[in-house]
Amino acid sequence: MQETGYLFRTDFTVRDYECDIQGVVNNANYQHYLEHARHQFLVSKGISFYDLHEEGLDLIVTKVEIEYKYPLRSCDRFFVTINMAREGNVRIVFTQDIFRIPDNKLIVKARITIAAIKSGRPVAPPVDLIKQLGLE
Amino acid sequence: MQETGYLFRTDFTVRDYECDIQGVVNNANYQHYLEHARHQFLVSKGISFYDLHEEGLDLIVTKVEIEYKYPLRSCDRFFVTINMAREGNVRIVFTQDIFRIPDNKLIVKARITIAAIKSGRPVAPPVDLIKQLGLE
Amino acid sequence: MQETGYLFRTDFTVRDYECDIQGVVNNANYQHYLEHARHQFLVSKGISFYDLHEEGLDLIVTKVEIEYKYPLRSCDRFFVTINMAREGNVRIVFTQDIFRIPDNKLIVKARITIAAIKSGRPVAPPVDLIKQLGLE
Amino acid sequence: MQETGYLFRTDFTVRDYECDIQGVVNNANYQHYLEHARHQFLVSKGISFYDLHEEGLDLIVTKVEIEYKYPLRSCDRFFVTINMAREGNVRIVFTQDIFRIPDNKLIVKARITIAAIKSGRPVAPPVDLIKQLGLE
Repeated sequence: MQETGYLFRTDFTVRDYECDIQGVVNNANYQHYLEHARHQFLVSKGISFYDLHEEGLDLIVTKVEIEYKYPLRSCDRFFVTINMAREGNVRIVFTQDIFRIPDNKLIVKARITIAAIKSGRPVAPPVDLIKQLGLE
Repeated sequence: MQETGYLFRTDFTVRDYECDIQGVVNNANYQHYLEHARHQFLVSKGISFYDLHEEGLDLIVTKVEIEYKYPLRSCDRFFVTINMAREGNVRIVFTQDIFRIPDNKLIVKARITIAAIKSGRPVAPPVDLIKQLGLE
Repeated sequence: MQETGYLFRTDFTVRDYECDIQGVVNNANYQHYLEHARHQFLVSKGISFYDLHEEGLDLIVTKVEIEYKYPLRSCDRFFVTINMAREGNVRIVFTQDIFRIPDNKLIVKARITIAAIKSGRPVAPPVDLIKQLGLE
Repeated sequence: MQETGYLFRTDFTVRDYECDIQGVVNNANYQHYLEHARHQFLVSKGISFYDLHEEGLDLIVTKVEIEYKYPLRSCDRFFVTINMAREGNVRIVFTQDIFRIPDNKLIVKARITIAAIKSGRPVAPPVDLIKQLGLE
């Protein structure tokens, strides 16, 4: 499996409370992992949700598509990758995969669509933000 | 917005701990709501995950596609609907929407793909299960 | 088991995602149930955290003591009760129990201590709030 | 604040989805942190819940007492400590504190009581387990 060629990576360990009766990570928790990796990525780029919010700009998730390939279990280690592209004028699409450590087995493939919202309406992300993200 | 024509409906109230810093329900929690509604639906049809599991059959989510249309906030009431169709020989697709109560505002549109798995391999869902689900 | 003599009651059904590998509700989720019941109680008394917060007053949990008597399982129905008393000048103590439906089996006994905080310091809860809570 | 003299320590970073509307970590999530630290500790001692369960022994939480001293916020780093003692013949008590990194500010003080259960009844923990835990 190809797990190279990503912009950013965050490492995790499965916590027992994230697992359900079947002994595997509950599906919704993968969305938590993906979100935490994106937020760590934004922090690494010097981008703060809260500063953006203060300036009246919110980055919101408008769509998630997640393919579940193989389950994670208690104590498994894994990493979440991030790639990113603009889609049209308004949207940014994150492609994110989850791989188990150390065998790099593909666990989840995801595509997360983000929009910038100002006063309740979608707007083109500000030039500064696009630069910070390296999306010019 | 059209919110009629569903097989099943479950009602909920947002709990404060499901909301995040922005004051709206965290995206992953909608997946919990959708899952709980599906499980309530299966229970209503007399289908038990645990009995199926004992017989060696697991129903697993292989894909979720969720469009976030409008956020829910603390104390909002809402309902989750279920429709269902077969896709090919192996998969069952649930289409699920979330509407706010009482104004029926569309909150989320989702498409959840389920596969039946036996001994680690996808199989056609057993005839009995298809009958119980009303999918003949 | 004595389950009468409470000020308020909220009913719940266990959701599968709240259960862990042992097939029982994860311990932290009982704290969610207790919290949701308290918030529903406050709403029933016309008390809003957010209005209080706007006036500079926050009600915060300073201590929880929870005894786990018997576990809840998938699909169990249960209710959470609330009683309440002042402790000293500054604190309010909620005593909350969880009982399974329909057999009233005692599941959890809890004691939750709340303090009113203004500008980062504990203060006596305002007279109006004490009246709304029926604690005069 | 004294944060030395513990048997074990696990480091964490707050994830945004763990925070609630007030911008601080939701109270129930501290219980998750404490649990994950205990499980990591048991793993470090070569103790497996699942192996114990297979042998008919379950370690269950019978009581939690948590004092909330100061809130954690988005992106805060922190560590959870573990100390441990027997209480009577049947119970093991974990004392666990949470400290913010890097200023070692005390966030949470907790006391978690565990019992060993066999066939639904409390039993003295097996000698091997007591040895593995270093509690002789």
